[in-house]
Amino acid sequence: MPRARLRDLGIVTGSLPPGQWNAITDVPGVRVGYATLIRDVPSVVRTGVTAIWPRGPEIWTDAVFAAIHSFNGNGEMTGWAWIAEQGMLASPICITNTHAIGVVRDAICAYAVEKKVPVPWLLPVVAETFDGWLSDATSFPITAEHAVAALDAATSGAIAEGNVGGGTGMICHEFKGGTGTASRVVQVAGETFTVGTLVQANYGARELLRVDGVPVGREIGPDTVPSHRDIPCDAGSIIVVLATDAPLLPIQCQRLARRATTGLAWVGGIGSNSSGDIFLAFATGNHVHHGKAISAVRMLSPDNMNPLFQAAAEATEEAILNALTAAETMTGFAGHTAHALPLDRFVEVMRRYRP
Amino acid sequence: MPRARLRDLGIVTGSLPPGQWNAITDVPGVRVGYATLIRDVPSVVRTGVTAIWPRGPEIWTDAVFAAIHSFNGNGEMTGWAWIAEQGMLASPICITNTHAIGVVRDAICAYAVEKKVPVPWLLPVVAETFDGWLSDATSFPITAEHAVAALDAATSGAIAEGNVGGGTGMICHEFKGGTGTASRVVQVAGETFTVGTLVQANYGARELLRVDGVPVGREIGPDTVPSHRDIPCDAGSIIVVLATDAPLLPIQCQRLARRATTGLAWVGGIGSNSSGDIFLAFATGNHVHHGKAISAVRMLSPDNMNPLFQAAAEATEEAILNALTAAETMTGFAGHTAHALPLDRFVEVMRRYRP
Amino acid sequence: MPRARLRDLGIVTGSLPPGQWNAITDVPGVRVGYATLIRDVPSVVRTGVTAIWPRGPEIWTDAVFAAIHSFNGNGEMTGWAWIAEQGMLASPICITNTHAIGVVRDAICAYAVEKKVPVPWLLPVVAETFDGWLSDATSFPITAEHAVAALDAATSGAIAEGNVGGGTGMICHEFKGGTGTASRVVQVAGETFTVGTLVQANYGARELLRVDGVPVGREIGPDTVPSHRDIPCDAGSIIVVLATDAPLLPIQCQRLARRATTGLAWVGGIGSNSSGDIFLAFATGNHVHHGKAISAVRMLSPDNMNPLFQAAAEATEEAILNALTAAETMTGFAGHTAHALPLDRFVEVMRRYRP
Amino acid sequence: MPRARLRDLGIVTGSLPPGQWNAITDVPGVRVGYATLIRDVPSVVRTGVTAIWPRGPEIWTDAVFAAIHSFNGNGEMTGWAWIAEQGMLASPICITNTHAIGVVRDAICAYAVEKKVPVPWLLPVVAETFDGWLSDATSFPITAEHAVAALDAATSGAIAEGNVGGGTGMICHEFKGGTGTASRVVQVAGETFTVGTLVQANYGARELLRVDGVPVGREIGPDTVPSHRDIPCDAGSIIVVLATDAPLLPIQCQRLARRATTGLAWVGGIGSNSSGDIFLAFATGNHVHHGKAISAVRMLSPDNMNPLFQAAAEATEEAILNALTAAETMTGFAGHTAHALPLDRFVEVMRRYRP
Repeated sequence: MPRARLRDLGIVTGSLPPGQWNAITDVPGVRVGYATLIRDVPSVVRTGVTAIWPRGPEIWTDAVFAAIHSFNGNGEMTGWAWIAEQGMLASPICITNTHAIGVVRDAICAYAVEKKVPVPWLLPVVAETFDGWLSDATSFPITAEHAVAALDAATSGAIAEGNVGGGTGMICHEFKGGTGTASRVVQVAGETFTVGTLVQANYGARELLRVDGVPVGREIGPDTVPSHRDIPCDAGSIIVVLATDAPLLPIQCQRLARRATTGLAWVGGIGSNSSGDIFLAFATGNHVHHGKAISAVRMLSPDNMNPLFQAAAEATEEAILNALTAAETMTGFAGHTAHALPLDRFVEVMRRYRP
Repeated sequence: MPRARLRDLGIVTGSLPPGQWNAITDVPGVRVGYATLIRDVPSVVRTGVTAIWPRGPEIWTDAVFAAIHSFNGNGEMTGWAWIAEQGMLASPICITNTHAIGVVRDAICAYAVEKKVPVPWLLPVVAETFDGWLSDATSFPITAEHAVAALDAATSGAIAEGNVGGGTGMICHEFKGGTGTASRVVQVAGETFTVGTLVQANYGARELLRVDGVPVGREIGPDTVPSHRDIPCDAGSIIVVLATDAPLLPIQCQRLARRATTGLAWVGGIGSNSSGDIFLAFATGNHVHHGKAISAVRMLSPDNMNPLFQAAAEATEEAILNALTAAETMTGFAGHTAHALPLDRFVEVMRRYRP
Repeated sequence: MPRARLRDLGIVTGSLPPGQWNAITDVPGVRVGYATLIRDVPSVVRTGVTAIWPRGPEIWTDAVFAAIHSFNGNGEMTGWAWIAEQGMLASPICITNTHAIGVVRDAICAYAVEKKVPVPWLLPVVAETFDGWLSDATSFPITAEHAVAALDAATSGAIAEGNVGGGTGMICHEFKGGTGTASRVVQVAGETFTVGTLVQANYGARELLRVDGVPVGREIGPDTVPSHRDIPCDAGSIIVVLATDAPLLPIQCQRLARRATTGLAWVGGIGSNSSGDIFLAFATGNHVHHGKAISAVRMLSPDNMNPLFQAAAEATEEAILNALTAAETMTGFAGHTAHALPLDRFVEVMRRYRP
Repeated sequence: MPRARLRDLGIVTGSLPPGQWNAITDVPGVRVGYATLIRDVPSVVRTGVTAIWPRGPEIWTDAVFAAIHSFNGNGEMTGWAWIAEQGMLASPICITNTHAIGVVRDAICAYAVEKKVPVPWLLPVVAETFDGWLSDATSFPITAEHAVAALDAATSGAIAEGNVGGGTGMICHEFKGGTGTASRVVQVAGETFTVGTLVQANYGARELLRVDGVPVGREIGPDTVPSHRDIPCDAGSIIVVLATDAPLLPIQCQRLARRATTGLAWVGGIGSNSSGDIFLAFATGNHVHHGKAISAVRMLSPDNMNPLFQAAAEATEEAILNALTAAETMTGFAGHTAHALPLDRFVEVMRRYRP
C-alpha cells in the first residue's frame, strides 16, 4: 500500500472542513520549501531544512503578528525574545536539525543582506528537532546553501510530506515521522478564515498513539513493528507552525499557539521531558509595514476565537497524522531503521474500532 | 442506575494505577472539605466552597512548592503573583463561585488571624468557576462562614464528588458537572510517588466529550439528553488542583501543572474563550519552614519527570470523568435543569466501542 | 512648610513636560475617586480605597487594552489571568489594603449587577499594599460601601494625594507614603499622547531614596527623621497604574508597564522580597465594544515607543515623589507614627546638591 | 589620562563591598575568555566573542541553576526555551555580534562533540549585541575558530574590559562601550556570597547617562564629545550575565536576573525599543549532576534575598560604568569613530556634583 495522506485512507479526524490543499499553504500567501539531504558519504545523513514564508518576499518589510508557546521547552526556537516583545515576525521561518540551528539562522541573515532588506539586523526564527538516530548529526552536514535552497524552493499549493526537509530523519511515536501539514476553514463573524499547520514531528511513545481516539499504538505494538527504543536515545520534539489569515493581535496568536497542545494531546503527545514542543502561530490578516508610524489593524473579538481554537487543534492533530502516513521506512546512521506506520494494518485497526 | 465513580462502571482510562482512594487525598497530608449550599429561599442557590489543605495546619509555617498555569485565563485565581514570584504556597486553597472569590479570600485571611498564624499578611489562593445558570449568583449567597465551614470540614481518605462544595452548580460538556478527583501512583528513581488531582469542572461542548477516545458526546447528543445551550450563557471554566509528594522544585510544579492541559484535551476541553482553565500544582515532598534561612530540599531530575507528567494527565482526565459520573441531575435557578450523564447509556456506548 | 507637590517645591525630575494636572487624569476620560477611613474606634484604622475608572461608565462595555507586569510579586492584583489572556480591561480598578482585596473585589461585581452591566460575570482588578503598621488591619474595617463610595466619588481634573484612599496608611522609604500621581506629554508620530500614573507607594529603604540622583535618604537619615524600621514589620509594596491615550496593543501595554520598574529604580526601589511591586498599564486609544465581532484598532509602531517608555518612567518617578511630598505625618495603630519627609530639609538638600 | 576602572578614578557607586577582583570571576569557578577581531582587511571589523564558563569543564555534566529575564527583547539569547523549562544551564555562555549568533552557537555544539560530552545534543546559550556601526557586520567575519579561541582562553582572576571579545565594537550612551564587569559580596544567613556581573554594553542615550545620580550625560554632551547619533543607526542592546555562588533555585535566579533592570536604570537605560536588554543569572551554589536521579540542593529563604537583589543591581551598574571607563576611542567601519568617555572631564564633573 503506497504512502498516503490520512484522508486518502478514508480516515477523518475532527469535524471542521479542511482547505483546498489541506495544508498550511491554504492560508493565502504562505509558501513552503524544502532542502533534503539523504546521502551515505562522507557521512550517513538523513536531514534537511524546511522553510516557511508567512507572506511572499514582502515579509521583510510587511510584518505579520506572531507569538510562540512552549509546551515543553527542551528545544530551540531562535527569535523568541523579539517575538515575545513585539509580537511581530518579519522574516521566513526555518526548521532543521538541532545542530544546524546556527548555520541556518546566520544564513537567513546573509540572505537578507544579499536581498538588500532595509533593516540593519535580523533576529530570524529557526527551530529544530533532533535527527541523530538516523543521521550522523555530529558530522554537521547542513550548510548555508541548504538553507538558501529551502528558502528559494518555497511554493504555494500542495506540498510534500514525510521524509522531506527538516523532517527527513524524524521518528514519531516510534514510527518513522517527519513533516506533515493540514488545514481547517471556519466561518467567523461573517467572514471565512483558514488555519493551517505544519509540523516537524519527532516525539512520542508508541503506546500513547491514538487516531480519532483509537489506540493505534497499542494495537500496532513493538512486537508487530519494531521500535527504536532499545537504543538509549529518547530524542524527541515537535515543532508546530500555525498560520491563519484571521485578523488576530499578537496576544491572540499566543492563544492560538497554545491550542497546538490540544491537537498534540489527541494524538498522544504529553510533552515528554526530552521533547522540545514549541509552537509558533502567525496571523497574516494584519499588516505592519516597516517605517509606518501608526498601523490600522483589525481584531477579531475574543468571543469569536473558539472556531479558530478548534481549527488549530484539529489541524495540528491531522498534520501529525499526515507525517506518519506519509513518511516511508528509512535506514540510516549506524544501520538504524525507523519503520513506517504500516498503512494496511492501520486501516484495519481503524475499521475494527469504527465499524 | 445509581451515580458511581468511573471505575465502578468498569471503565478504566489511562494505564497507570490509582492510589488507595483514587483521590487527591492519596497524597499524604492532603485534606479536602466542602460547604454545600442548596436552598430555594431567599434565593435559589446551588453553590458552595471547596477547601484543599496541602498539608495539615502546619501549612501556615511549612510551605509547599507550587506553580500555576493558565491554559485559558478567563477566570480568577488569587495569590497568583506571590506563587509566580516565590514558587511557594503556605495556606489552604479554596474554590468557589466567581462572585464569591472575594469573601472567601478575605475569610482565609481572617481565619489565619484567628489562628494566630505568625505572618503579618496573607495572599491566599481562591479560584472559581461560574454557577450562574443553576444558581442565583447575583444574590451573593456565599459568606465567610461557608469558607470556614469548608476549611474545618476537611478530611483525608475518600471524599465526596459531584454536586458538592464549589462544584455544586457546575455544568460540564453540557451534562451536570461538579467536583471530581483521581490519583495515580508511579515508581520513579527507586521511590514511589503519588499524583492526585481535584477538579471543579464547568466547561465544554457536548460534541467534543470523549472517554478513552470514544465519542460519548456525539453518541449521547442533545436529542437524547437535553443541553443547557439554548440559554445564551456559555459560562465555562475548569479549575484543576494537582498534588504530589514527589520532591519537585517550583519550576517543576509549573511543568506538572501544564500537563493538566493534556488530560483536559483527552476528555474534550479545548480552552474555550469564556473558560477559565487554570491549573495549580503543589508538591509536598519538600518543606520550607517559616523563618528558616536555608532549606535543604530535593529535586527529582528532569529525566525522571515523564511518569509524573503522564500521571498528571491521566489523573486530570479521570477526575473530570468522575465529576460527570458522580454528579446528579439538578434543577435550580429560573427552573433550569442540568441533566446528569446517563450512566446506563454511557456504559452501553463504551461497550459498543470497546467490545 | 505646608505639604506640596514636588514641582511646587521648585524641584523638577525628568525632562518631558507634564500634562495640565500632572496627574493620571490628564489622560482623557480617566477618573479617580477615594474613600478614606481615619478613625480610632472601634479600632484604630488608617486605610481606604482608591478607584480608577479607565473611561467613564462606558468602560463596562467599551474595553481598553491593558497588561500587568510584576517586578516583585509579593502582592495581589486580582483579574490578572483575564488580562493576561485577552489583554483587555472592562471594569474600574481599585487599590486598597491587603486584607480588603476580597470585599472590594466582590463589591465591584455587585456594583456591576446593580448597574445592570450586560455581562454574566466579572473578573475585576483590585490591588493592594499593606497598611498594618499604622492601621489595625486585622479588624477588617473596609466594607463594600467604602468601595462603592470610592467608585462614585471619582472625578477628573486635579486629584488628592498623600494620605487618601488606599494610600492612607502607607509608608515609603521609611517616610510617610501614600497616593501620588503625575503625567507626561509626548509628541509621537505627528500626534500628542499623554502618559499618566497613579501610585500607592508603601515600599523602600531610607538609604536608597534618591531624588533626581541626589541621595536624599542618606542625607535625611533615621537620626534626623525616625524610621519605623525598629518595628519588625518590613511590609512593603508599590502598585503603579499607568494610563495612556496612545493607540497601543495589549503587548505594547505590557512593555509600558515594565517601564515603571525604571522610574521606581530612579527613586530607589529595588523590589525587596516582601514588596508587591505590580504595575498595570492601560491604553484608552483603542476601543473594543462588547458584542462587536471585529474591532478596528490602531497600533503605534514599536519604533515610536521610546518617548512613551521615558514618559512612563518619569511619571512613575514623580508620582512616587508626589506621594512623599504630599503625605503628612500620621500617628495610628499601636501609637505608631510615620513621619513625613520634611520639606524644608528636603529642599535644602536638593539645593546643596544642585546649586 | 589612561583608561581605568571606575574605582581607580576614586568614584564609588553603591554601598556593598566588591570582591577581590571586582569581577564576575569573584564567583568561584567562573572563568571568562575573549577572542577579539580588530582588522581592516578584507573587511573592516571590530568584533569578537566573549565566553563565560559557569564552572570549569565539569559544567557539561554538573549543571548550575539559571534563569533569563528580558527587559526589552529586541535581541537574541539562544537556549532560552530549555532554561525556561528546566532552570538549568550545562554549557558555557557566549556573547558576540548579532550576525554571529549562529556560527558561535553551532561551534559550542561541535566543541562538545569534540570533547566527547556525554549528551546527544546541546542547546547552548549565545547572546548578542549589534556592532554594525564600527564593524562591517555584513561581512560575517566571526568563525567557529573564534568561538573556540574564546572558550579556550577563559581564565579566572582579573579579566580585560572595554574593547575586548564580543564587546569590541560596542557603543554605550553614545560613548565607546564594550565589556565590563563588577562584583559584590554580601553576608546572608550566616554565610558569605558573591554576586558578579559581566555586561556587553551597547545601549543608551547620552542625555540619560547618570553616575551615582550625577547627570554625566548632560554635562558631557554631544557638543563636547561627538555622538554617533547623526548616523541613522539606533542599534542598541545590553546583555547582562549575573553569577552567584548563593544556593538559589531556578525561580530565584529569575528574581536575581530581573534586578539587572534596576542597575541598568541607575545608569540611564530605559529599555529602548531597538535594544535587546536580556539578562541571564546563574547560581553555582547547587549542583545537578547528569544522570543523578535525585539531587540534594539548598534554597536560600526568600526573606534573605534582599542583599542579593541589591548586589545584583549594584554590580550591574558598576559593570556598565567599567565598560565605559575602560573602553578606548575606536575608529572602524566606514570611518566611523566612537569616542571614549573622557576620564578627566568625567572626574571633574563628579567632583563638582559630589564635592
